[in-house]
Amino acid sequence: MTKEKSQAGLNVKKSDDFSEWYNQVVQKAELADYSDVKGFMVIRPNAYSIWEAIQSYFDKRIKSLGVRNAYFPLLIPESFFKKEAEHAKGFTPEVAWVSNREGERLAIRPTSETIIYDSYSKWIRSWRDLPLRINQWSNVVRWETKATRLFLRTREFLWQEGHCVYSSREECDKETLQFLKEYKKMCEEILAIPVLAGRKTEKEKFSGALYTLSIEGIMPDGKVLQMGTSHNLGQGFAKSFGISFLDKNGKSGLPWQNSWGVSTRLIGALTMAHGDDKGLVLPPKVAYNKVVIIPLLFKGEEKKVLAKSKEVAKKLENLNPILDDRDNTPGWKFNEHELKGIPIRIEIGPKDIEKKQVVLVRRDTGKKIEVKENSIRKEVEDLLEDIQDSLLKKAKKDFDEKIVEVKDTLELKKTISNQKVALAFFCGKNTCEENIKEKADGAKTINMPLEGRKKDGKCVACGKSAKEVVYIAKSY
Amino acid sequence: MTKEKSQAGLNVKKSDDFSEWYNQVVQKAELADYSDVKGFMVIRPNAYSIWEAIQSYFDKRIKSLGVRNAYFPLLIPESFFKKEAEHAKGFTPEVAWVSNREGERLAIRPTSETIIYDSYSKWIRSWRDLPLRINQWSNVVRWETKATRLFLRTREFLWQEGHCVYSSREECDKETLQFLKEYKKMCEEILAIPVLAGRKTEKEKFSGALYTLSIEGIMPDGKVLQMGTSHNLGQGFAKSFGISFLDKNGKSGLPWQNSWGVSTRLIGALTMAHGDDKGLVLPPKVAYNKVVIIPLLFKGEEKKVLAKSKEVAKKLENLNPILDDRDNTPGWKFNEHELKGIPIRIEIGPKDIEKKQVVLVRRDTGKKIEVKENSIRKEVEDLLEDIQDSLLKKAKKDFDEKIVEVKDTLELKKTISNQKVALAFFCGKNTCEENIKEKADGAKTINMPLEGRKKDGKCVACGKSAKEVVYIAKSY
Repeated sequence: MTKEKSQAGLNVKKSDDFSEWYNQVVQKAELADYSDVKGFMVIRPNAYSIWEAIQSYFDKRIKSLGVRNAYFPLLIPESFFKKEAEHAKGFTPEVAWVSNREGERLAIRPTSETIIYDSYSKWIRSWRDLPLRINQWSNVVRWETKATRLFLRTREFLWQEGHCVYSSREECDKETLQFLKEYKKMCEEILAIPVLAGRKTEKEKFSGALYTLSIEGIMPDGKVLQMGTSHNLGQGFAKSFGISFLDKNGKSGLPWQNSWGVSTRLIGALTMAHGDDKGLVLPPKVAYNKVVIIPLLFKGEEKKVLAKSKEVAKKLENLNPILDDRDNTPGWKFNEHELKGIPIRIEIGPKDIEKKQVVLVRRDTGKKIEVKENSIRKEVEDLLEDIQDSLLKKAKKDFDEKIVEVKDTLELKKTISNQKVALAFFCGKNTCEENIKEKADGAKTINMPLEGRKKDGKCVACGKSAKEVVYIAKSY
Repeated sequence: MTKEKSQAGLNVKKSDDFSEWYNQVVQKAELADYSDVKGFMVIRPNAYSIWEAIQSYFDKRIKSLGVRNAYFPLLIPESFFKKEAEHAKGFTPEVAWVSNREGERLAIRPTSETIIYDSYSKWIRSWRDLPLRINQWSNVVRWETKATRLFLRTREFLWQEGHCVYSSREECDKETLQFLKEYKKMCEEILAIPVLAGRKTEKEKFSGALYTLSIEGIMPDGKVLQMGTSHNLGQGFAKSFGISFLDKNGKSGLPWQNSWGVSTRLIGALTMAHGDDKGLVLPPKVAYNKVVIIPLLFKGEEKKVLAKSKEVAKKLENLNPILDDRDNTPGWKFNEHELKGIPIRIEIGPKDIEKKQVVLVRRDTGKKIEVKENSIRKEVEDLLEDIQDSLLKKAKKDFDEKIVEVKDTLELKKTISNQKVALAFFCGKNTCEENIKEKADGAKTINMPLEGRKKDGKCVACGKSAKEVVYIAKSY
């Protein structure tokens, strides 16, 4: 990090031009860079460490639920890819093909259902082999034709994809929901982002699925970002790939399957949700360096202050502190670490040493707190927890304020143009879904909430009786 | 895992047909499977957990050395790929290309020097940016034309590739060696495999490198397996990619670079090194399930034995014990878990409960040990350490016995045909290197040991004065 580069802080406010603000934060906080290959991104260490925090949290969770990790081939034979018709139809437009080698064309995986289920058809024989729960951490390639944006829509991204097989629909339903709930919990607990958890409409579900559950974040511009999905795939893939099992009575049956995934898109969500005019704001639980120590090097006192700073860094070792002893001014350093979102800054100057204290500065609120040096570890750890909680609380408040119940297309239109998310009754008809899109300036159905469904009402589009409610918003 | 499948244990001895034995262990212990895409493999959970143990160990090590993880694009523009001539020449024959999308042809990365150094040319400006140390955990594709073998030679594999940039040759030399030593340490400490650490000859070095250091394992068939490499890339890539930096005096200079990697090939090495006629033998440090508990369910005593087994499993929770309470016979279970290489089997029967003891059985030696139940955790942990140590000791003995010093091509030929590794003086000439290959039945130079080089001697091929010694062997 050179002086020239990072002095270039943000030159736009989040509230003035959200889109440009996002691009600047991502690049200036050194989260990601565009690659020379159009639509591809470089995930830089500052962002990759967030992905590692997500992996570490989620990997433990799924292992406790009986999931094991594996790795399947990057390249998928065209013939596999086409076995499940709906699935093939949905993904074919986005596939990059390898064709300079012997044999049939090979697709670079846009998702791995087909290559994984080919293996499953060889591995699964009896009820003893079920449930089979496997997850893969990998890269995928989808040749997006829409404009790409770092983390939000790129032609390659990193993700996890879980693929489970069950002997009954009940189990499959139960765990499809369970994995969605794990995603919701993760978003709240470590990313500090509340989400809309619900079921996608028929039109918006995954290609080849029976139904799709999703979690969706509401971004500050009122647009919704899909942050994770869990699909009940029914028995369609089992049929197409010849996966069957003998039950306890020796009778052959088709199993039920689900698949579920989250991606590096979560890093984009995090950036948008918490960032401010100074740059990124990292929830402590995903911050690799939870603390930065800035020694205030007044002339003649440098040695003393540096020694104390090192002592403090040692005490906070478990929090991966950065001790910034470079020869830039403190103000310059403050800006840089604020841009990068480090949760707590610790300032140590000669006067602090005299008073046996240090100054803690919260990244989220900017508030300064003087704490006694001998209790610093506990003080810092408590403050990190408080920052984590505050970020979620603030995000939850914003979230709740963004949701507006609407009764008709007029209210719907107004809500969307106010950059909010509408909650409306919906009869489920395809024509109504298209009508909504047309009337509400391109906004579309997001998902139908899992909980808190009302008894009944009238469809926002056709006015006829409706049993479901649906979120409607513009989306990324 | 069904009864029918795993009852099929190995039907060949390691000493009778090593190659077939290897294939059977890999597939029957459910480490990996061939994919329908020729030359590609599925890494199954039993093997992926070994890779996770390697990642977890090595990732901590490199982070402590100042390395940070990142992720670069899978696809590399043909023009980047061709910038460093030697590099392009070495890798082009093995490249899979994507050409169905707009723009120039894109190579699926066979290694990432070129795409990474394009980014480095944008990120590096001054001495303050150096050293830059970045690592990537990823997949790579190399279209091998030789026969493929699971883990050892496949068209896709997983690896880590470290890419560092330094302001001086000294630093670069120092760390190129340091990372090689980390690899050596990892092989010994967790995989229990001793290695030959040395420098590759000019002919065998990495395409585009100044020099290549490698670690190589000696397999039971006397063939050598390259297990890791660390390349000093000199300044060639910096020149080709326009990476330069301003030093403290404001003068522009070319930096020095290295790159270093290990791959899922290590899992193949591990399998070959320690396995026996019963199957895989896992060093405890890379075993996800370090223990399997088999309740001996005598009629009428089932409840008591199961309860005790659960109690023991609870006590050993930190070792991820498998409690195998399926309805197969104990003997059948013994076979299965031996095939899969679980380090310790714990047998618990009614008599053991009476005596307040359990029986521990070592996977490596088959030795049975009765231990008191109240000290079980310590006993098991001590035994795991002992197994880890014994495996390395045994491997080290085999390793030492495999190396034979030779003076001329006659001795060399004999050594190779005895399935051993020769150590010989070597003058360094290309013609001598070719001569060795011809005379020694296809064996080739492996590497020149870093330490313990003798003063001088006569080249094994031409008989002229030679300052280096080199290992010569057949290789995977």
